[in-house]
Amino acid sequence: MTLKIGVIGTGAIGREHIRRITNNLSGATIVAVTDVNAEAAKAAVDNYKLNAQVFPDDKTLIESGGVDAILVTSWGPAHQQSVMAGIEAGKYVFCEKPLATTAQGCMEIVQAEVRHGKKLVQVGFMRRYDQGYQQLKHAIDSKFIGEPLMIRCAHRNPEVDDKYTTDMAITDTLVHEIDVLHWLVNDDYKSVQVAYPKKTRHASSHLRDPQVVTLETQGGILINAEIFVNCKYGYDIQCEVIGEEGVVKLPEVPSITFRKEAQLGTHILMDWKQRFLDAYDRELQDFIDSIRLSGEPQGPTSWDGYIAAVTADVCVRAQESGRQESVELGEKPTLYK
Amino acid sequence: MTLKIGVIGTGAIGREHIRRITNNLSGATIVAVTDVNAEAAKAAVDNYKLNAQVFPDDKTLIESGGVDAILVTSWGPAHQQSVMAGIEAGKYVFCEKPLATTAQGCMEIVQAEVRHGKKLVQVGFMRRYDQGYQQLKHAIDSKFIGEPLMIRCAHRNPEVDDKYTTDMAITDTLVHEIDVLHWLVNDDYKSVQVAYPKKTRHASSHLRDPQVVTLETQGGILINAEIFVNCKYGYDIQCEVIGEEGVVKLPEVPSITFRKEAQLGTHILMDWKQRFLDAYDRELQDFIDSIRLSGEPQGPTSWDGYIAAVTADVCVRAQESGRQESVELGEKPTLYK
Amino acid sequence: MTLKIGVIGTGAIGREHIRRITNNLSGATIVAVTDVNAEAAKAAVDNYKLNAQVFPDDKTLIESGGVDAILVTSWGPAHQQSVMAGIEAGKYVFCEKPLATTAQGCMEIVQAEVRHGKKLVQVGFMRRYDQGYQQLKHAIDSKFIGEPLMIRCAHRNPEVDDKYTTDMAITDTLVHEIDVLHWLVNDDYKSVQVAYPKKTRHASSHLRDPQVVTLETQGGILINAEIFVNCKYGYDIQCEVIGEEGVVKLPEVPSITFRKEAQLGTHILMDWKQRFLDAYDRELQDFIDSIRLSGEPQGPTSWDGYIAAVTADVCVRAQESGRQESVELGEKPTLYK
Amino acid sequence: MTLKIGVIGTGAIGREHIRRITNNLSGATIVAVTDVNAEAAKAAVDNYKLNAQVFPDDKTLIESGGVDAILVTSWGPAHQQSVMAGIEAGKYVFCEKPLATTAQGCMEIVQAEVRHGKKLVQVGFMRRYDQGYQQLKHAIDSKFIGEPLMIRCAHRNPEVDDKYTTDMAITDTLVHEIDVLHWLVNDDYKSVQVAYPKKTRHASSHLRDPQVVTLETQGGILINAEIFVNCKYGYDIQCEVIGEEGVVKLPEVPSITFRKEAQLGTHILMDWKQRFLDAYDRELQDFIDSIRLSGEPQGPTSWDGYIAAVTADVCVRAQESGRQESVELGEKPTLYK
Repeated sequence: MTLKIGVIGTGAIGREHIRRITNNLSGATIVAVTDVNAEAAKAAVDNYKLNAQVFPDDKTLIESGGVDAILVTSWGPAHQQSVMAGIEAGKYVFCEKPLATTAQGCMEIVQAEVRHGKKLVQVGFMRRYDQGYQQLKHAIDSKFIGEPLMIRCAHRNPEVDDKYTTDMAITDTLVHEIDVLHWLVNDDYKSVQVAYPKKTRHASSHLRDPQVVTLETQGGILINAEIFVNCKYGYDIQCEVIGEEGVVKLPEVPSITFRKEAQLGTHILMDWKQRFLDAYDRELQDFIDSIRLSGEPQGPTSWDGYIAAVTADVCVRAQESGRQESVELGEKPTLYK
Repeated sequence: MTLKIGVIGTGAIGREHIRRITNNLSGATIVAVTDVNAEAAKAAVDNYKLNAQVFPDDKTLIESGGVDAILVTSWGPAHQQSVMAGIEAGKYVFCEKPLATTAQGCMEIVQAEVRHGKKLVQVGFMRRYDQGYQQLKHAIDSKFIGEPLMIRCAHRNPEVDDKYTTDMAITDTLVHEIDVLHWLVNDDYKSVQVAYPKKTRHASSHLRDPQVVTLETQGGILINAEIFVNCKYGYDIQCEVIGEEGVVKLPEVPSITFRKEAQLGTHILMDWKQRFLDAYDRELQDFIDSIRLSGEPQGPTSWDGYIAAVTADVCVRAQESGRQESVELGEKPTLYK
Repeated sequence: MTLKIGVIGTGAIGREHIRRITNNLSGATIVAVTDVNAEAAKAAVDNYKLNAQVFPDDKTLIESGGVDAILVTSWGPAHQQSVMAGIEAGKYVFCEKPLATTAQGCMEIVQAEVRHGKKLVQVGFMRRYDQGYQQLKHAIDSKFIGEPLMIRCAHRNPEVDDKYTTDMAITDTLVHEIDVLHWLVNDDYKSVQVAYPKKTRHASSHLRDPQVVTLETQGGILINAEIFVNCKYGYDIQCEVIGEEGVVKLPEVPSITFRKEAQLGTHILMDWKQRFLDAYDRELQDFIDSIRLSGEPQGPTSWDGYIAAVTADVCVRAQESGRQESVELGEKPTLYK
Repeated sequence: MTLKIGVIGTGAIGREHIRRITNNLSGATIVAVTDVNAEAAKAAVDNYKLNAQVFPDDKTLIESGGVDAILVTSWGPAHQQSVMAGIEAGKYVFCEKPLATTAQGCMEIVQAEVRHGKKLVQVGFMRRYDQGYQQLKHAIDSKFIGEPLMIRCAHRNPEVDDKYTTDMAITDTLVHEIDVLHWLVNDDYKSVQVAYPKKTRHASSHLRDPQVVTLETQGGILINAEIFVNCKYGYDIQCEVIGEEGVVKLPEVPSITFRKEAQLGTHILMDWKQRFLDAYDRELQDFIDSIRLSGEPQGPTSWDGYIAAVTADVCVRAQESGRQESVELGEKPTLYK
């Protein structure tokens, strides 16, 4: 069985996933596309030589009998509506972050899925599919370093444009750490505090950059997360877990070692799009494979999307208050246990 | 268009490629299989739920109208016959190493392909698809280190069984370096010499291990290649190119860094099968894609298979003589320039 | 001119310095020793074959005409009295940490030195003499990474005994970071906060371990300092400075790289005494050389000792309060500017 | 007892050792100097404020009653005469390389020392005192990697001047590897072969650069030694020992790690004089200490100087012949066993 996919939103990331499914992955085919800009949808079909129908909107695409699963890659504020419609139609849903723009919206999706009685939704938190993070998780789960006590991580970009605002350091940037770290240590967040180091002269006047977010988990693990989006030197994702008997750390991105001009070095990526290429492939392949094999996606769930939304809200509140703020989740439905 | 592939030989590597094409890659489907053991062929079809016909032998499979390309993954001595038949039938051929067991056999394939007038054959030298080697090649081609002058490389296995003989250090092991290194520096081999360091006590009584092969290219590049197949500690592929203005070196296999029990370290693979997983995927995807896009495979050619066979023969001669031996290639047909 | 040194306190560190001056360094000689245990003082003279007089107490030693400089290596509570007596006698003083056990005591020393009108005292903060820290400082001072914005550091020991209490994480352990970090960035501390991650099961029941101290400087640099004294795996000092244009990090302790048993690694020290051996040599040689060349020690001053004492007090207060606490220094005398 | 040293030759290296003994080391004092240029000798005394007598020549200096040990730092062709005179006078001798300019000259020194009946001479092969090489030796001696089978090393300089000739790659450059490698593996050389890779365009017209020297030991260890004196990028000493159960490798020179401008790197030294600073200090301190403690220097002996001279001669012969050449040593006197 080939999984028949309809794509909602043919912007940059939508086209990337179309290319991926069509040229790199196995077991799925794009049969339908739609976009608020109908020309863009048609152009995508032409560019990738798809044998796919162009629909006028998400609703008609979802209701089309030929679609098994939808890919929600529209702009954020439109996600919730498509995901809800997908669930109601009993279709599988792969939704890029955010699942919804509010915690409330995420909760509504969770409730709809619970009512449906089966997991249909996977959220596009691709880092869980990165081999480095998977090795970290394996080390933690196997007690290679004993119980984890602290995590130090950093999320650095060379630069951002003027439209990037202080809260986007949470909602666009830290949100990936928010998802991957609680998964890594099988724990929930308890509190958040934000501190502002000396500001870099490379940030725009309205932006606090860098920022340091301290998260504490229910189990007492202390996470120190640096966000630095004008670091100039590269796109650099660091993560180190300190445990009772040792420390494990994400590998650097593999790159040839050079000796040249009095330096021994390797290259650092400048473009974030290069960093998780394999993880993007693997998350979508896993979405396809797990549906084909077990009838249920096995990646990040709606509940994970809800956790990310709640925690991001608290982080933004902590950015403003300067105080330690509590993270309060609703009760976790049985479906996600 | 989906490339329809027939597989000749459903042993371990044949099944690996079937799994890869079916579950990981895009644009091809297995439509036919055969094996000297018909039960094995049928089992492969069942295991991977293929919609594929089982043929009694390579000849009937190749002549079948539904097959666009064949995958030759039978045992080495059978390769030449299948490849020749494939060329004669105008089918694309992906052939695992060796292309043929003799240089003469490889030359016959080259000549058949030249007569056919178009490249049909790709040889399974997957290292060219490894991202580390590709970065090395990019550094060399872009003159990042000036002209390359020397290469130091090592091919180490934890251990081999008793059936592994001294000449297999060339034909099974070094053959990968033989292919990838001349490609890396765009040069041909001129001479070969073999030296035997002190023997490890972990080698069987009949095996010279380690061995050091010195290859010189036409352009004067000196290559020092260590083969050490009972090194105990891991499967380890090293390659360092020393140029006029700098040195570049293959990255280590990425792995989390740990601090534990007075050591700061990373893990080394023990199993060679893990080392080039990505490269295997990429070589087959490239075989499929280049045929679909340009009607011609763009990977290692029959001529490269011939170079490997000739050079391996000279290396084995050098193993026995202890002297510097010359590498003499036939004239390179225009098709491969 | 050879600097004639009297040693006050012949315990472990006193004897280490005697050995160092006698066997490793140039330009000084031990001419006098004293200890509360007179037998220990005599034994030190015998062991190191010193041509040195044994004095009954610090006062008589200091007043002895033959002594140019004193080494204060007695137990902490006795330091202040010896240092004050040394200053009053116009003798040079090398004092191991702490300069005095209270900030008030340090201030009295500062005032005595100011009255004397010339710097006489060097405090034993040896990290400033470590080549790694010196390279970091050079990178910062030369603006190699632009303005420093954040520092991440860790001070880890394999284990401590039961007598080690929670406040000693500051006064015995973090005190080295307290000194070296403000020197590194040419800045003063403004506030301190302490957080307690999940406790390791390897710590004694009364000890909070690990701890994370957040220090902010007057200039806004945010310092995240981990103290983890039962980390099991090694003695490990980490320091990373994140600046506007890049990051610099202390080198690991140099050690041969090994490939063995599926690991690629280096060794981590287990014994803190090995870590700063060179720095100890260099701090004392610099004490000797700077006095001989310029008549004034050029290392960490009494004022640095005072800063360390004040900051450590605030850290201990922050350990207890859980709140952010302010660091308030007295006015810096001209002598130290 | 302070060792009273007379220095023969106050050129660059002589003055470096004077500075070292006077300012860094313990237990020795310079009491006498001489140089073919008497003004240079006087200038050295003034510059370092030595309390030392200037002698008209090596002979009178050696015969002076106040001298315990001589430092031979004159130009190479003058070494043998001073060393022989030192031995005849029963003085300790620290002689910079070469011990003598010919193997015959070295043998005469060996014979003189044997007649004297006690070791007096230490040759300035400082690498044995480098902590990296000492860690390698410890790993080998403790069988950490089993029996050593191969060594790969490289000796690279950024550039040399036009006076540097092809044979100097052996006599000035490789000679350090010649000494340190046989010491490392406790073995003697058996044969030598030299190969010339493609020449770098940065070498002067008369110079073969790089060169690769293959040495085989009596025990069968195969050594691949690269000499590359116009490598442009840095002064870089590499040494890797491959054993039956693992590999050990010299650490890189410690240097802060930086992340800047899309690179993750460390600095490589450009100036050879920085590379073995500690080793120079340690070799001379050991010369002083071992004489003071045991009445005999314990560093590289006259016999080691003889081995280096013989082996260098064979290497130069192999440079010219292109063939494998045998290393034939005289019988080792009991004094050196």
